[in-house]
Amino acid sequence: MRNIKIELEYAGTNFSGWQIQPNKRTVQGTITSSLKKFLVEDKLKLKGVSRTDAGVHALSYVANFKTKSKLGVKDIRNALNSHLPPDIYVHKALEVDADFNSRYSAKNKIYRYRILPHFSPLRKNFTWQIRYQLAMSPMKRASKYLTGKKDFTPFSVEENNRVVNVKKVNLYREGDELIFEIEANRFLNKMVRMIVGTLVEIGRGKIKPLLIKELLNNGKKGSGGPTAPPQGLYLVKVKY
Amino acid sequence: MRNIKIELEYAGTNFSGWQIQPNKRTVQGTITSSLKKFLVEDKLKLKGVSRTDAGVHALSYVANFKTKSKLGVKDIRNALNSHLPPDIYVHKALEVDADFNSRYSAKNKIYRYRILPHFSPLRKNFTWQIRYQLAMSPMKRASKYLTGKKDFTPFSVEENNRVVNVKKVNLYREGDELIFEIEANRFLNKMVRMIVGTLVEIGRGKIKPLLIKELLNNGKKGSGGPTAPPQGLYLVKVKY
Repeated sequence: MRNIKIELEYAGTNFSGWQIQPNKRTVQGTITSSLKKFLVEDKLKLKGVSRTDAGVHALSYVANFKTKSKLGVKDIRNALNSHLPPDIYVHKALEVDADFNSRYSAKNKIYRYRILPHFSPLRKNFTWQIRYQLAMSPMKRASKYLTGKKDFTPFSVEENNRVVNVKKVNLYREGDELIFEIEANRFLNKMVRMIVGTLVEIGRGKIKPLLIKELLNNGKKGSGGPTAPPQGLYLVKVKY
Repeated sequence: MRNIKIELEYAGTNFSGWQIQPNKRTVQGTITSSLKKFLVEDKLKLKGVSRTDAGVHALSYVANFKTKSKLGVKDIRNALNSHLPPDIYVHKALEVDADFNSRYSAKNKIYRYRILPHFSPLRKNFTWQIRYQLAMSPMKRASKYLTGKKDFTPFSVEENNRVVNVKKVNLYREGDELIFEIEANRFLNKMVRMIVGTLVEIGRGKIKPLLIKELLNNGKKGSGGPTAPPQGLYLVKVKY
């Protein structure tokens, strides 16, 4: 069996997230049924790098599957794109070692979150639009406490194993948007959105930057800000 | 009667353009029926700066209407936004002189066109996505021939009065996109899209930059490139 890795982009707006679910339109389900249209495998198993929530986007999501097909990787990519709906596109397909697993082989992932401090119908499904201006410098100060190997329980809805190694964090302006970027070895369910929700409370002056440091030391659940909505979040890159 | 000017943004994707039409979802129709929900006028007449085609977007469209209402302009803006669907948003409402007419008082308008030389599902409704790389320098050379007071018959589907005074043209890269911006005293139906279609043929090497100059001298119809699709086009600003 050959092991095929694909790198794809999708607009999460009209998907119930990545993971296959009965009677829901999901990215995994849509790609799997498109692959079955031209591959011989009946029980094709498409493995994705991670779950993404409904509404969350991906600029370069990675998945892999095994096939007996002799089709070249460019032909696989083209055949797949010809069957996919316009909100998914496969940028690349390549053959990888048999032991490559898009999830377990991943070393680091980068997520981006776009905040817009006013309303814009053109970017409604692509940013978190809020009514107030945000002060950059306390948000920047707060975000510095995030890096390192830490227990992210306060920014998690999961039950155990919540230690994350955050490699890099960046907060910057791009045009009228505020962009938060974070690179880590792994991400807990809702983690980025809970961090962004807390940073926005800091930018509004509702809570102090130091709270992020205290939360990460104390490790208590649900003591940060609200969870930011899904449509501002992008999986940007997976490093292997 | 007070004369109220509004500046609004809309995502053109799900509208059959600006102008009201029976049984179609249009921007003019949607705003008019939202205004009637809180203003007393039965025959409210909303005047827009120009028609836009289905799929074309606006970052700052201008319209005006007359009303007896004593509501403050901020209240008008807020009431209107509370009735509008999420793909239209009124950024500003202000009271203007009785003789202000959003269409006839306009001095210059700026349009922008976004071209993406690859596929991206995230920007599907917001750019023209093409399969080939484009050479910037012949496109830039060609676009210089556009400025000045000229007969734009070759870039028009209209029958008469096709002289346009093009004030400024700009072609530049922004990230992975190619942006074409044009400012003129008026725009003919499909003019920007026909110019962009011709520029792209020049960028592909199919026709020479000098053709734009020849077309504008000869003034013959339909001799340029194909018409670029609507979703890459934005009305950016109206100057009064």
